Amino acid sequence: MSYGVFSRGSSEPRVGWRIGDAVVDLAEAGLGEVFRAPSLNPFMEQGRDAWSETLAAVNALSDPPLVPLDEVDLHLPFEVGDYVDFYSSIEHATTMGRMFRPQGEPLLPNWRWLPVGYHGRAGTIVPSGTPIVRPCGQVKAPDADEPAYGASKRLDIELELGFVVGVGSTLGEQVSTDRFRDHVFGIVLVNDWSARDIQAWEYQPLGPFLGKSFATTISAWVTPLELLDSHRVDQPAQSLEPLPYLRVQGAQNFDLALEVELNGEVVSRTNARDLYWSGPQQLAHLTVNGASIRTGDLFATGTISGAEHGSEGSFIELWRGGRFLEDGDEVILRGRAGDVELGEVRGRIEAASVSA
Amino acid sequence: MSYGVFSRGSSEPRVGWRIGDAVVDLAEAGLGEVFRAPSLNPFMEQGRDAWSETLAAVNALSDPPLVPLDEVDLHLPFEVGDYVDFYSSIEHATTMGRMFRPQGEPLLPNWRWLPVGYHGRAGTIVPSGTPIVRPCGQVKAPDADEPAYGASKRLDIELELGFVVGVGSTLGEQVSTDRFRDHVFGIVLVNDWSARDIQAWEYQPLGPFLGKSFATTISAWVTPLELLDSHRVDQPAQSLEPLPYLRVQGAQNFDLALEVELNGEVVSRTNARDLYWSGPQQLAHLTVNGASIRTGDLFATGTISGAEHGSEGSFIELWRGGRFLEDGDEVILRGRAGDVELGEVRGRIEAASVSA
Repeated sequence: MSYGVFSRGSSEPRVGWRIGDAVVDLAEAGLGEVFRAPSLNPFMEQGRDAWSETLAAVNALSDPPLVPLDEVDLHLPFEVGDYVDFYSSIEHATTMGRMFRPQGEPLLPNWRWLPVGYHGRAGTIVPSGTPIVRPCGQVKAPDADEPAYGASKRLDIELELGFVVGVGSTLGEQVSTDRFRDHVFGIVLVNDWSARDIQAWEYQPLGPFLGKSFATTISAWVTPLELLDSHRVDQPAQSLEPLPYLRVQGAQNFDLALEVELNGEVVSRTNARDLYWSGPQQLAHLTVNGASIRTGDLFATGTISGAEHGSEGSFIELWRGGRFLEDGDEVILRGRAGDVELGEVRGRIEAASVSA
Repeated sequence: MSYGVFSRGSSEPRVGWRIGDAVVDLAEAGLGEVFRAPSLNPFMEQGRDAWSETLAAVNALSDPPLVPLDEVDLHLPFEVGDYVDFYSSIEHATTMGRMFRPQGEPLLPNWRWLPVGYHGRAGTIVPSGTPIVRPCGQVKAPDADEPAYGASKRLDIELELGFVVGVGSTLGEQVSTDRFRDHVFGIVLVNDWSARDIQAWEYQPLGPFLGKSFATTISAWVTPLELLDSHRVDQPAQSLEPLPYLRVQGAQNFDLALEVELNGEVVSRTNARDLYWSGPQQLAHLTVNGASIRTGDLFATGTISGAEHGSEGSFIELWRGGRFLEDGDEVILRGRAGDVELGEVRGRIEAASVSA
C-alpha cells in the first residue's frame, strides 16, 4: 500500500500503487493523467486534499488493472530536491559521540536543544536494489602518521526513515510543527551507507562529506503519511523544554517496527517510536531560518537505534567495530506498522572498481 | 561576455549572451533552439565541443539582435543540482579556526591533505539582486547558559567563486584532475551569506546547516571557463605533497581580481590566484569515492581571503566581529580577469520578517 514508479519491458516509467505482490497502473485505472509522469513529483505537489482523495479512490477501485510485481522494473519514485539528514536518535548520537570523540562528552551541548542535521548529496540517492560499489578515498589509521588512498575497510549501514516533501514553501516562510502534514506526503525507508574510515578522517570541522556521498538507498515505494495515522504515538518526554518553535501537539512519532537483515539473517530489530526529535520538529527546525522547501525534498531521521543490544541501526554500534560490510554482503531493511508494510531497502556490496 | 537567462516584459525566460550593457538573444540570433530553454542546463550538457563552437559563433556574429540590459529581468541561470562548498583558502581556514576553536590548532590535521568540503542547500540558491531576509534561529551568547530564539545579529558575507558543472558523470566514476575542463562549463561569483551566531551554536558535530541554508546568491551570469584560459596561473606550492589523485599538471588557478563593496564603498580587495586547493583538485576529491555529478551541480571554493588586512572575504575576518550586516546594507561582489568581467553579486539585507 504505497506509491512507486514502475515500467514494464520497454514502456515508459509511470506511477503505480502497490498492493501485495502486484502493482495497480493508476493512469490506466483512470485515476488521472498525473500518474503517467515518470515521478511522483507532479502528484505530490497537488497537496493534501488530492492525496486523500486519491487514497480513497484507490481503495474504492473494483477489479483494478494489476501487474505482477515480478514483471516490472522499479525506479527512483521521486526527483529528489535537497536531502537533509538529521541525528534524532539519542541512543545513536550518544554511542557515535563516544566513538568519534572519546575524549569528550558524548552528547554535545546543542543536541538536546535542536535537531542536529546537515545536507547530504541528493544526486546519489538510488532506489532499492541498486548495487553499492565500495567507495575509495583518504583514510588514516589511528596509528599512522599520514593518510593513505584506498578502498574503505569500514563500510557500514544506517537504518533511517525519510520524510518526502510534497508541497513546498516560499523563501522566508517558517513551517510550524502543526503544518507538517500539509507539506509532507509520505515516508520511505533509507539506508544511508557510511564509510566510517573516510568519515573519521574528513568530518572535522564541516561535517560528513565523502564518507556518505557515494550512495544513499531509499525504498522504491513511498508510503502515504495518512496510512500511518493510526500508528502515531507520543514521542518520549524531552529532558529540556524545547523552544516554542519546536513544541508539538499530539502524537508525532510512529510505532514502526524496523529490522536489518544481513545475508538472510535478521541482525537487528528496533522501532521508530522512541526517536527524540520527531518529523514535525525536524521540519520546523529546517525552515526556522526561512529556508524554503521544494516538492521532492527528502529529510531523514538519522540512524534509528534502540537502547538494548540487538536494536542498533548501524553495524559500528551493533558490533563495536568488529565487523563491517564485506564484498558480496546483502543488506535488506524492512519496516512495518500493523498491516502497513514499508517498501524494503535492499543493497549488495560490490568490490571497489577504481584505483588511483 | 557571459551567459545568463533573461526575460523581457511577459516573455518566457531564455538564454542570452551579455556584451557590456546589452544582451544578445541567442535563439533569435540563430545559434540554436537550445537557447529557448529557461535555463542553461540543456546547452551545458552538450559538452565541451559545443561550448567552444558556440563561443566562436557568438564572436563571429555581426549585427546581433541586442536587448538593452536595463530592459530585461534576470533569472537563476541554471537549475542547481547539488551544491558543495569547499574551504580552499588557507588564510580563511586559519582565521576561522582561530575564532571558532580558540583552544586548538587553527588548521585541523586533515586540511593540508584534502580539500575540506560539505554539502549546502541547493534549493535556496538565488540570483543576484534577490533581497536577503535576515534569518532567525537559535543562538547562544558566549556568557549565556541557554540558547534563545531570535534574529541573527552576526549576519555576514562570504566571497567565493563557484564552478558550474556542464557534463555529468556516472555513479562509481572518478573524475581525475585532468578532466576538469571536460566537465566544468563555467564560473559564477558567489556570496554564501552566513549567520555566524546561528552557525557557532549549531555546527558541531555535523557541520554548518541553518547558519548558511537561508540563502546563497550567485551572479546571474556564468562566464565560460574558456574565456579565462589566458588568466590561468600556477597555484601556490603545497606544503605537503598531495596524494596522486589530487596532483595537477599546469596552471589551475585563476588570476581573478575580486572586490567587496558595502553601501557604495569598496571594503576589501583580493584575488583568487592564491587559493591553496584549485578547482580540478576540488572536483577530483568530490568524486574520488565514486559520487556522480550532474549538469547544474555547483561547487564553490569557500571564502577567498588574502593574507593582508583589507583582502578578507568575510566581515568577521575583516572587522574581527566589530561590524556585521545591518538591515538596509547592500553588498556587491565583483570579479575581473583582464577584460573579462564576471557577473556581479548584489544583495540587500531586509529586516527579519518572522517571529515565533
